[in-house]
Amino acid sequence: MEQKDKLQIIPLGGLGEIGKNMTVFQYGDDIVILDAGLAFPEDDMLGIDLVIPDMSYLIDNQDKVRAVVLTHGHEDHIGALSYLLREIDVPVYGTRLALGLVEGRLKENRLSGHTLIPVKPGDEIAIGGLLVGFIQGSHSIPDSCGIYITTPVGTVVHTGDFKIDQTPVDGKLIDIHKFAELGNKGVLVLMSDSTNAERPGFTGSEREVAIAFDEEFKQAKGRIVIATFASNVSRIQQAMYTACKYNRKVVVLGRSMVNVVNVATELGYLQLPEGTLIETEEMKRYRDDQLLILTTGSQGEPMAGLSRMASNTHRSVSISAGDTVLIAATPIPGNETSVSKIIDSLFRLGAHVVYEKGSGMHVSGHASQEELKLMLNLVRPKFFIPVHGEYRMLKKHGKIAEDLGVPQENIFLGSNGDVFEFTKDTGRVAGKVKAGRVFVDGLGVGDVGNIVIRDRQQLSKEGIIVVVVTLDKQSGTMLSGPDLVSRGFVYVRDSSELMQEAQAKVRIALEHCEANKISDWSSIKVKVREVLGKFLFEKTRRRPMIIPIIMEV
Amino acid sequence: MEQKDKLQIIPLGGLGEIGKNMTVFQYGDDIVILDAGLAFPEDDMLGIDLVIPDMSYLIDNQDKVRAVVLTHGHEDHIGALSYLLREIDVPVYGTRLALGLVEGRLKENRLSGHTLIPVKPGDEIAIGGLLVGFIQGSHSIPDSCGIYITTPVGTVVHTGDFKIDQTPVDGKLIDIHKFAELGNKGVLVLMSDSTNAERPGFTGSEREVAIAFDEEFKQAKGRIVIATFASNVSRIQQAMYTACKYNRKVVVLGRSMVNVVNVATELGYLQLPEGTLIETEEMKRYRDDQLLILTTGSQGEPMAGLSRMASNTHRSVSISAGDTVLIAATPIPGNETSVSKIIDSLFRLGAHVVYEKGSGMHVSGHASQEELKLMLNLVRPKFFIPVHGEYRMLKKHGKIAEDLGVPQENIFLGSNGDVFEFTKDTGRVAGKVKAGRVFVDGLGVGDVGNIVIRDRQQLSKEGIIVVVVTLDKQSGTMLSGPDLVSRGFVYVRDSSELMQEAQAKVRIALEHCEANKISDWSSIKVKVREVLGKFLFEKTRRRPMIIPIIMEV
Repeated sequence: MEQKDKLQIIPLGGLGEIGKNMTVFQYGDDIVILDAGLAFPEDDMLGIDLVIPDMSYLIDNQDKVRAVVLTHGHEDHIGALSYLLREIDVPVYGTRLALGLVEGRLKENRLSGHTLIPVKPGDEIAIGGLLVGFIQGSHSIPDSCGIYITTPVGTVVHTGDFKIDQTPVDGKLIDIHKFAELGNKGVLVLMSDSTNAERPGFTGSEREVAIAFDEEFKQAKGRIVIATFASNVSRIQQAMYTACKYNRKVVVLGRSMVNVVNVATELGYLQLPEGTLIETEEMKRYRDDQLLILTTGSQGEPMAGLSRMASNTHRSVSISAGDTVLIAATPIPGNETSVSKIIDSLFRLGAHVVYEKGSGMHVSGHASQEELKLMLNLVRPKFFIPVHGEYRMLKKHGKIAEDLGVPQENIFLGSNGDVFEFTKDTGRVAGKVKAGRVFVDGLGVGDVGNIVIRDRQQLSKEGIIVVVVTLDKQSGTMLSGPDLVSRGFVYVRDSSELMQEAQAKVRIALEHCEANKISDWSSIKVKVREVLGKFLFEKTRRRPMIIPIIMEV
Repeated sequence: MEQKDKLQIIPLGGLGEIGKNMTVFQYGDDIVILDAGLAFPEDDMLGIDLVIPDMSYLIDNQDKVRAVVLTHGHEDHIGALSYLLREIDVPVYGTRLALGLVEGRLKENRLSGHTLIPVKPGDEIAIGGLLVGFIQGSHSIPDSCGIYITTPVGTVVHTGDFKIDQTPVDGKLIDIHKFAELGNKGVLVLMSDSTNAERPGFTGSEREVAIAFDEEFKQAKGRIVIATFASNVSRIQQAMYTACKYNRKVVVLGRSMVNVVNVATELGYLQLPEGTLIETEEMKRYRDDQLLILTTGSQGEPMAGLSRMASNTHRSVSISAGDTVLIAATPIPGNETSVSKIIDSLFRLGAHVVYEKGSGMHVSGHASQEELKLMLNLVRPKFFIPVHGEYRMLKKHGKIAEDLGVPQENIFLGSNGDVFEFTKDTGRVAGKVKAGRVFVDGLGVGDVGNIVIRDRQQLSKEGIIVVVVTLDKQSGTMLSGPDLVSRGFVYVRDSSELMQEAQAKVRIALEHCEANKISDWSSIKVKVREVLGKFLFEKTRRRPMIIPIIMEV
């Protein structure tokens, strides 16, 4: 795998899924890692806080890892970095905003002493045998980058998350010229963002949201609350601009929003006139129509600002008639129900709520089909790997490339762990390394796996019954019990008859064991499970988890 | 509450929610119940199979209950009927298809001997002091009805689920004339379907789906699989018509789909040429392009047909390249992720999958704003109660009525349990009766409540640790244990050190109790919970449920 005339690209996350983006570029003995993102847990990953890529391959090859390069500061690109740096201490390259956000995360995880090296779009950095260049991109956060990596084998272009926004909020156009220039020189491989590959046409400019904001600010007579992604710095900037225009002071609520606003302001990525931002306590000094409250919770997260306001449990804001609430986000699949509940509660409180499609409150940060075509035509790659997307999105993106003339055999629809190997002329899938997902639950990284999750799933649906009995060590006779304790099964106070019957069944089973000199624990436990399970299923059609515990004295 | 000059309307379900529709009409000593529907559990109702209305009010007043009247045969209108009839045996009026579907449900619940009385649109039935009339409606199932109830106080019109489909699949137009006639005579109260009150314009005709089907049938070279709601008889009919047109045999898979097709065919609501329907085993006698497979699972239900096909675990169908899969439904909020996963799996299997908006594979069965306006203008009610919808939909529907001239004070935005009381001239909220939701879990109805659900939620997120210790009854000394057993907490095999430390902590705590002569169980248990909980939170940042069990010998 280490020949000098080969470039290997190994995606460890982001293929066949949305999130936890991470790609390994390996040339000779040098590995550069592009992004280290997290994913949010799916519904059936009970109790899991977040999901990160399996990094076994990197840990096994840590002597070769030279650097991490970041495209931008969103969680699905930087959220696994703390976990990576804990294992492998390497320098991290990124724009100032991305590194600012990384720093916050590292502090939270009590990591320090790591090397963070700021770069600007346009910079080129030699890392081992790889030359890494940063291209100005455009997305929903300032200073997002596309990346190119040049090796003797050829050049790879990775778009990062992008769209082609002709009127970006920060005025920094995506560097179409650079992509064109690279295309002219010849690109071996293009890796491009597939998030919106199913969407025809062009994605709107982030600036459109400002127009929708303006419309609402014009009419609002009371307070305005805007809930959006803490990470969407461009949208936050536009909300603040609009507040200034309408002479409203801005209060920022919600830990992650405050954090992002602080970092972005400090680094000069958020600009607003002195005195616009006020503290929570200062709110009472202003009339309702002089206030904008910026907060988190646009995804219905139960502990976030908007959710607390909707349930009237927020420390400093309670919503009432006359308030305008703008939900400047669309629900990520899976969050629809919780968002819908919050909207309903806000309506009940009498607020004017603006949300969902057609409201203009959200535009995507990802390129639609026509932009993807433009990127493909600019870069004109020999090989194409659609990235960042579920399988059907990759497939659609692959089809788009094919329609534009990339030969079908040069398009790779891969999965995480695939080793794509390129020479100057050839490309192939050369193997597979360990890849997958690692669950983070509290402080535990990887200590909750499929078995624990399956247990949680059973517990969540049917509850648990613990059966305890104390036996005499010598004779095997029952000294105490059987006692039955249940949780999540039935409301015991109303089901005492059922539980007594169940206890009697277990007692008979245990007496049967005793009488028949069955004394090995596992046989007794099997018997208890069988008898109790059958009885409860007949009575309730439920299958709680049954845990027999035998004590000996 | 029983004066002769008052009509009371008490919604027991369907206000502030989608589903479990049920409304009580009470005049004098006579109660008529309109619909008895179920709702599907929300994400946080762990392990719950279905949700039905709290029927306490009806059980308390069962001597007055004269009849149940059904608008149509969908689960959210008939699904709670078995539970109602188990408590109160009253005659049930409905169209033949609705009653056919009810019969199946009653059989499943081993209920028999109930009186089911078939009616036709146009019929009028005197039930106690109420005259109940059935109006031809249009929805996504044949023979859906609007209802009017006439009392000496006045007439109430309830639309049921409806849209104004100008080209219904079964050719039966919604009886606009009857609504107009009632409006002419004077209607006291209109209760109207708010499901799509947020949607501008008109809802498309169910027939549009046939056009989209036709397009796909024309091109398909292999098998076609259509997944849709088992209850959408009109859509099933159209799929079958299209199959006939393209000379494909039809196989119906999935228990609920088979059931609906059988009932509807038997009663003449599904028409198809002899020989069109074939058995599963006959499939192999036909070429792929001679087959249509109709199945369930359009909502991503893990045990349904489509899901099994996508995961390659279906008994008789495995999907492969060349197959066309039409998902003729949109995901109900909350199901987006599971549907999306299935689509992705089907793509991986190489199928051509048609889904989602813009594909023409689904039109709603509910009226949009312009149709709601037409209904309001036809009926011209004095009072208006928007029904069937979350609060914001009711609110929007109320606003529409206001814009059309219904005085604001005559529009009631209610919640389940509200008692709306009407005289010839007045209407008011006169009180509140017990209403809410009852969970059905297996055979248990109402034995799982908030406490059990909260336990399940904690278990699902953090798991459980059971601590067992056997004490000497006299001296209180430990004879055995403490033993720790965990489920859903950590993968024990990899965490033996943590668990041993935890055991040691508990042992010290128990020895402390022993030394300090603390012998009452509850104090010991509190101590164990406190010590163990603190230790585990420090080590893992998790809070598993801790159950101390003390055995005495």
